[in-house]
Amino acid sequence: MRTSLWRSDFRSLECRRAFTTTRANRERVNVARLLAQQTAADGVNVHGWVQSLRRQKKVAFAAISDGSTLDTLQAVLKPEVSAQLSTGTAVRLTGSWQASKGSKQSHELQVSHVEALGANDAEHNPLQPKYQTPEFLRTIPHLRPRIPANAILLRLRSQVIASLTQFFSQQGFVQTHTPIITSSDCEGAGEVFTISSNMAKDSVESQKPEEKASVEHFFRTPKYLTVSAQLHLEALAQAVDRVWTLSPTFRAERSDTPRHLSEFYMLEAELCFTKELDDVMSVVESMLSAVAADLLRSRTGTELLRTREAHHAEQETTTESATATDLKQRWTGLAEGGWPRITYANAIEMLLDAVSQSKVKFTYKPSYSAGLQAEHERYIAATIGEGKRPVFVTDYPRVQKAFYMAPTDPSDDESTADKTVACFDLLVPELCELAGGSIREHRSQELLKAMDAKGVAGEHLDWYQDLREYGSVPHGGFGLGFDRLLCYLSGVTNVRDVVAFPRWYGRCEC
Amino acid sequence: MRTSLWRSDFRSLECRRAFTTTRANRERVNVARLLAQQTAADGVNVHGWVQSLRRQKKVAFAAISDGSTLDTLQAVLKPEVSAQLSTGTAVRLTGSWQASKGSKQSHELQVSHVEALGANDAEHNPLQPKYQTPEFLRTIPHLRPRIPANAILLRLRSQVIASLTQFFSQQGFVQTHTPIITSSDCEGAGEVFTISSNMAKDSVESQKPEEKASVEHFFRTPKYLTVSAQLHLEALAQAVDRVWTLSPTFRAERSDTPRHLSEFYMLEAELCFTKELDDVMSVVESMLSAVAADLLRSRTGTELLRTREAHHAEQETTTESATATDLKQRWTGLAEGGWPRITYANAIEMLLDAVSQSKVKFTYKPSYSAGLQAEHERYIAATIGEGKRPVFVTDYPRVQKAFYMAPTDPSDDESTADKTVACFDLLVPELCELAGGSIREHRSQELLKAMDAKGVAGEHLDWYQDLREYGSVPHGGFGLGFDRLLCYLSGVTNVRDVVAFPRWYGRCEC
Repeated sequence: MRTSLWRSDFRSLECRRAFTTTRANRERVNVARLLAQQTAADGVNVHGWVQSLRRQKKVAFAAISDGSTLDTLQAVLKPEVSAQLSTGTAVRLTGSWQASKGSKQSHELQVSHVEALGANDAEHNPLQPKYQTPEFLRTIPHLRPRIPANAILLRLRSQVIASLTQFFSQQGFVQTHTPIITSSDCEGAGEVFTISSNMAKDSVESQKPEEKASVEHFFRTPKYLTVSAQLHLEALAQAVDRVWTLSPTFRAERSDTPRHLSEFYMLEAELCFTKELDDVMSVVESMLSAVAADLLRSRTGTELLRTREAHHAEQETTTESATATDLKQRWTGLAEGGWPRITYANAIEMLLDAVSQSKVKFTYKPSYSAGLQAEHERYIAATIGEGKRPVFVTDYPRVQKAFYMAPTDPSDDESTADKTVACFDLLVPELCELAGGSIREHRSQELLKAMDAKGVAGEHLDWYQDLREYGSVPHGGFGLGFDRLLCYLSGVTNVRDVVAFPRWYGRCEC
Repeated sequence: MRTSLWRSDFRSLECRRAFTTTRANRERVNVARLLAQQTAADGVNVHGWVQSLRRQKKVAFAAISDGSTLDTLQAVLKPEVSAQLSTGTAVRLTGSWQASKGSKQSHELQVSHVEALGANDAEHNPLQPKYQTPEFLRTIPHLRPRIPANAILLRLRSQVIASLTQFFSQQGFVQTHTPIITSSDCEGAGEVFTISSNMAKDSVESQKPEEKASVEHFFRTPKYLTVSAQLHLEALAQAVDRVWTLSPTFRAERSDTPRHLSEFYMLEAELCFTKELDDVMSVVESMLSAVAADLLRSRTGTELLRTREAHHAEQETTTESATATDLKQRWTGLAEGGWPRITYANAIEMLLDAVSQSKVKFTYKPSYSAGLQAEHERYIAATIGEGKRPVFVTDYPRVQKAFYMAPTDPSDDESTADKTVACFDLLVPELCELAGGSIREHRSQELLKAMDAKGVAGEHLDWYQDLREYGSVPHGGFGLGFDRLLCYLSGVTNVRDVVAFPRWYGRCEC
């Protein structure tokens, strides 16, 4: 009977496959775990890539890494079997884990069997085991993370995401996915990417005229890549009180600086039932404090500090980038919390004061109406934050900020020239603005007025206005540049080097 | 002295703000936590939205929710203070938590103070407290999650992300962010979105001719929204062995089905050092098993089951959607693991057999060369998976699958007409394909041949070819439709209803 045929086939299949991972995969350990093992063991299986090779007459040494740690495993091989290997080869090694005679490692792998797993044209590899400039490495992002100091940045990102996920979950925030394709280009007029569908031209032409408009726009009207998740988050917060997202965000800015990308991740959160900026700042502070505390006690953290030491040992001249000591101070400054808070007005006054006392020279004279320049922000972070703690600058003039921000004092008379909004920028040394947030205007009429004043009103924001008509609620939130945070945590000065495949004006490799 | 002025200002600021969250925010509890409290308490502060109001002569009852639970809190008010409230109003309530006289709840809040927090035009709210069709609700996604059965879908998404983050972290996978803007349109030719920058026309015309090309394309050449993170993940896996991402993905498909969106989240993972499909399937199986186990023991899980009961109680006719019992079976089927695995060839044979025995009628006759139709996949899930366990169908004919898949038998002769690739589709009841994966071709020449055969070779994939030249390594991976997974876990049949702001052909609300 055919039924029994397939059934028995199917059963034998079950047996053969045993419903589990393969034995080889179950038995392997990664390099990090093996290096932590201080006792001898036989029949060890490990996989990785050859980082370097040293051949002597009677013995060869291979340093093996698999990206799980900055450290390499020392594999001791017979010279003849090492012939099939070169720098970069993927290998499977079997052997015994034994105390090492060398002083550089406690244990090493005495290899009984080596298998080269794939091709490796070491000679023509654009990635060479020598110093190559960051600029060049950015042209080969598909190979770059194989450098241990870059691999650790991948692990840092992963760890920080995990810390954030845990933090927000404990704080009762719901993680959401806000849309990437949106109707609104309100925040970055002229600096958004437009999307279109790749429809073949003849297929458009074959449409009836009345259908053409809808065909030319896949979504009927023009759509853009999101510049911020905030407006959508506000809608979701009105259903579950506290929401957050870690989501890609886009700017078609033609700027070519170490701080800007065309595509970057933003961490954004909104919380309801508050009119107090303190509540919002408190979330930012405790969140970053939790991330830093996790980093301080993690292996990734320890290894990151070592990469900074190596980085500075390599440089002949002093550079502006953070040393291991600087980094540890940063993390401690984050973990401890209690960050200074100063109003914008006080900050300007302080800057003017510093200038008048010749403590500092600026290219741009600080002025209440002109706003803070990067050099001013840097000085604020260096002095008020003592170069190791972030500083909240609060209550900026309304004219400098977005339409959705609530006034510091809700009873403010409109005619008050210098009225401020309940907002903050979080400034850190080197990078300046890391995050920004505010209490949102939750009153319908006031929001409409603000939208008119900024020229952002329009049908595509009717839904946002609805949030103020039906069950409106005082709320606030913030956005934090996630890639910038990774820069701050790692001491990497160029944001293009903490993003696996960075995109910026004119550049989109791979 | 001015310095001391700002310094003292700054200090007084510190004192005033106390570096913490506000007292009001610290002291509030959410509805879920309060409902779990079985002892009386005074001075309770709680915030939420009025779900319903019932006014009697001497007393009024308000059901309050804040999205933290499906349940509402019963607030007992004086009729005169309830006048300021309507369905949907955001409120702050203060009172004492006491044993209830009613039978529907153990405790209730005897309210001493009510504050309506914002405007609420209940009458004109498009969202009304009555049955409204899913089709209508999709036109108001900014209001839709206020329905408790929709709010719980937000919480489900959040919980599943947290489960996944923990699972992958424990398994040594590095979470990464792959690019959204890419050069490659290879997988979905004609079905990709193209991006362009919104540069004003006159500014383009003012450019010199030789600069025009670069201006018209922000990134010099045409760029698209990603259809899959896989190729980029493969590059990162070659640095840290095991990687995963949960990332937005796009298709400009002009299809209007309950299973397709233009923008959706894909969970993708890659792992190195394996040639065995079993290793890849094992990750999928243990991952979904962990997610389901978390769901089974969570409050969100319990509440989801209750929404299904309510859903079915509301319907007069039987519907095709899953009951609470079905759902629990699904979760158990996922949590237990040990899912059937059957080859494509055996599946076709089984289908033909079922047809010949008149066990089932299909619109399309099963055939090895035509591929599995949705009706066939549904039958496989229903019979082999017994309608409660996913089924892995493996080893499809090469002609049906993507270029990067490795052969089932690497020694396969090219001339073998029906040669298969080491791949799987994961089929579940109702939704059919939930995930797909394969061993990737890691041999340079074989990959080139496959790319030529599928017509996908090109300069923009040179970097992908590089991965086979330098330190190439056997590896495999998979992609899972995250929104579809949420459908499967929740029993929601239309993917547009598990996504907060769904986008599909012609539709992009908010």
